Amino acid sequence: MADPAPSHRLLVNPERVRANLRTFARIGYSPDGGINRLAFSRSDLRARQTLVHLLASLGLRTTIDGIGNVFGRLPGGDDPRLPPILVGSHLDTVPGGGRFDGSLGVVAAVEVAAVLREHAATTRHPVEVVSFSCEESSRFGRSTLGSGVVAGVWDAAEILELTDARGVRLGQVLQRLGLDPNRVASARRQPGDFAAYVELHIEQGRVLEEARAPLGIVEAIAAPTRLRVRLTGRADHSGATPMTLRRDALAGAAEVVLAVERIARSIPGVVGTVGTLAIEPGAINVVPGRADLAIDVRGTVSADKRHAVDEIQEAIAAIAAARGLTASRDVMSDEEPVRLDPRVVDTLERLARERGIPATRLASGAGHDAMQMARLCPTGMLMVPSRGGISHNRAEWSELDDIVTGIQVLLDATLALAQPAGPG
Amino acid sequence: MADPAPSHRLLVNPERVRANLRTFARIGYSPDGGINRLAFSRSDLRARQTLVHLLASLGLRTTIDGIGNVFGRLPGGDDPRLPPILVGSHLDTVPGGGRFDGSLGVVAAVEVAAVLREHAATTRHPVEVVSFSCEESSRFGRSTLGSGVVAGVWDAAEILELTDARGVRLGQVLQRLGLDPNRVASARRQPGDFAAYVELHIEQGRVLEEARAPLGIVEAIAAPTRLRVRLTGRADHSGATPMTLRRDALAGAAEVVLAVERIARSIPGVVGTVGTLAIEPGAINVVPGRADLAIDVRGTVSADKRHAVDEIQEAIAAIAAARGLTASRDVMSDEEPVRLDPRVVDTLERLARERGIPATRLASGAGHDAMQMARLCPTGMLMVPSRGGISHNRAEWSELDDIVTGIQVLLDATLALAQPAGPG
Repeated sequence: MADPAPSHRLLVNPERVRANLRTFARIGYSPDGGINRLAFSRSDLRARQTLVHLLASLGLRTTIDGIGNVFGRLPGGDDPRLPPILVGSHLDTVPGGGRFDGSLGVVAAVEVAAVLREHAATTRHPVEVVSFSCEESSRFGRSTLGSGVVAGVWDAAEILELTDARGVRLGQVLQRLGLDPNRVASARRQPGDFAAYVELHIEQGRVLEEARAPLGIVEAIAAPTRLRVRLTGRADHSGATPMTLRRDALAGAAEVVLAVERIARSIPGVVGTVGTLAIEPGAINVVPGRADLAIDVRGTVSADKRHAVDEIQEAIAAIAAARGLTASRDVMSDEEPVRLDPRVVDTLERLARERGIPATRLASGAGHDAMQMARLCPTGMLMVPSRGGISHNRAEWSELDDIVTGIQVLLDATLALAQPAGPG
Repeated sequence: MADPAPSHRLLVNPERVRANLRTFARIGYSPDGGINRLAFSRSDLRARQTLVHLLASLGLRTTIDGIGNVFGRLPGGDDPRLPPILVGSHLDTVPGGGRFDGSLGVVAAVEVAAVLREHAATTRHPVEVVSFSCEESSRFGRSTLGSGVVAGVWDAAEILELTDARGVRLGQVLQRLGLDPNRVASARRQPGDFAAYVELHIEQGRVLEEARAPLGIVEAIAAPTRLRVRLTGRADHSGATPMTLRRDALAGAAEVVLAVERIARSIPGVVGTVGTLAIEPGAINVVPGRADLAIDVRGTVSADKRHAVDEIQEAIAAIAAARGLTASRDVMSDEEPVRLDPRVVDTLERLARERGIPATRLASGAGHDAMQMARLCPTGMLMVPSRGGISHNRAEWSELDDIVTGIQVLLDATLALAQPAGPG
């Protein structure tokens, strides 16, 4: 057997990974409800503070940009013009989320930096750890705010006006955290600012589990199209209003929920979800006069997703017309599916093979920061299996062995992309 | 033409009625949202205080019982054993309710007392004005709490444990208002404590409007059966979970909503409504793992209502089984439809005829305090038309002419039942 490449001696420390995962899993955790670290919440802030402290302890130069993205930088070699390799993910969660979605990628990036540090391994390119702000759409109805601003996908002025469920604007939220809303636009980076971005994430699906593969290499990401729909009927007394004279907004919304399900089922590769539904006035003895719902449609093939969205729009119009409801629809986001960089994908595949890891290529049904970063720089993404495909849920689970495997390939890839400057 | 009966000279004062209606319409009112006087809320308390002041100004002896029902008494004649004629309704509203539901009946009872007072008309029986607590089910999921305790329909210990949407128990709520929960049971009255109960209410339906009748005389009240249903599936990532692997609680709930509608439509005289629906975790990018809904079924024919409820229960079980959801169901209330006292109904009809008012007999689809009081004493109920049948809504409207007509017959009936003690 040939000697391993020098970089192959840089190995992930499973105990440190486990400890760091546990550290973040405790922030915002409740025994009943999973992890609640809604973007820019108090617990999200605590997670960022914990990360900044961790990065600083490793001796990384830590900065926070205008949208709150946290960066920690390991310097590169002699050529200051070489841009950094960026490695990371996000720390915010959905309400009642799990301990791996996002956090794993940040902990993995911290581990990459820690291993490089402890071996005093130097690279030509700098290596930067990143935790992007507000990757989950749970709070503002739009995902990947932090990476989207960096990649120039979102307009700062526009996203500052987004409001959460309590009607609080993003601008106000940032201000409360001590971030100047006028500086959000400054977080935007230019092509060439990063040499590459690599992200490790849990799969949140069942492809790897069914293939019995410990590692996935992402080729494409299915971006969501999101609609906000308001159906307006008439609030009436539930006892005194004959069925024939009702304009029940909830009954209309129920038909919309089932139409989304039926249409998504009919188009392979497309998924459609109604994840929020609120009715007014919402009393047991009142026919609902209004229903607000949000629809999320995804697919890796743009034309298929478009087709599903068109059918859903037609269904909503038909349901409203048949029931005497008015329907207002608002496209909150409509993103194109993204193909990741073929050279980075090939590099990841080669490095996994060199470690003897049977990796599988796959498409991501979930959106990720990598989806936005792919518009700015060569981007790759690794996935580890999620038990039962469960995520956005406290039952989310990935095995430490798979996690360590994933981080090892992430470390190898970071080194390969950043180019070792001398013997490891 | 013959001389009118002496009591026919006792006439309602339309301006006073209008002013009193306006007084209560302002309490808890917001220009956008209608009237918010949820039972035992701050604004409900303000309405009670206003009523107590109004009753005291008329010289009535005012008392508040253990569940917060407000009574104002005009003394009767020489025989202290004669029980009072009770006249009234309630002051609490649904969220975003109208200005007539409940309030009209209280204002009408106040007007009856005011006319008797200003004419110094004396009666053999005392006359009591009443405003019952918590008639609407909006806060505690159960209607007619105040009248139900008086009539012995609700057990005090049981209702004290009812909780509102914030999880606050009725017992705590009463305590905050200065009412001793241990005294709730003392509000129960015995058969013979009241000679009769008469209530004026808006119709909240379209029967009178379509019949072009200014007044309705209620023969029966359709009591609700109420189910609380929880569907539990699995919260999953909306992008990464294929349609075939989902256990979407909201999609199941949507089928339940439509089943309730379909079953109620199929049985004449029955109405069925899903008025509340809440999903967890309720994020745009998460397949809902849980849905809680409340179903309200009503009918004036007991067997028909029972049949509808059975079909709905079967539908819920079938939907849950087909979708791999678990369904828990809880019957919150299951009341028998009530027939009002035939002699009181006849009296109301005769008195309307004597005033030349074309009254129509009808069934009430909505539940009322009269439904509970009918179990305790001879009870009658009058209804005035609601424009478009709209109620539980800020668009609720009744014409002053119809209102005055209704109060006049209520006044005549109160006098007839209380028996004039001398020339009017």
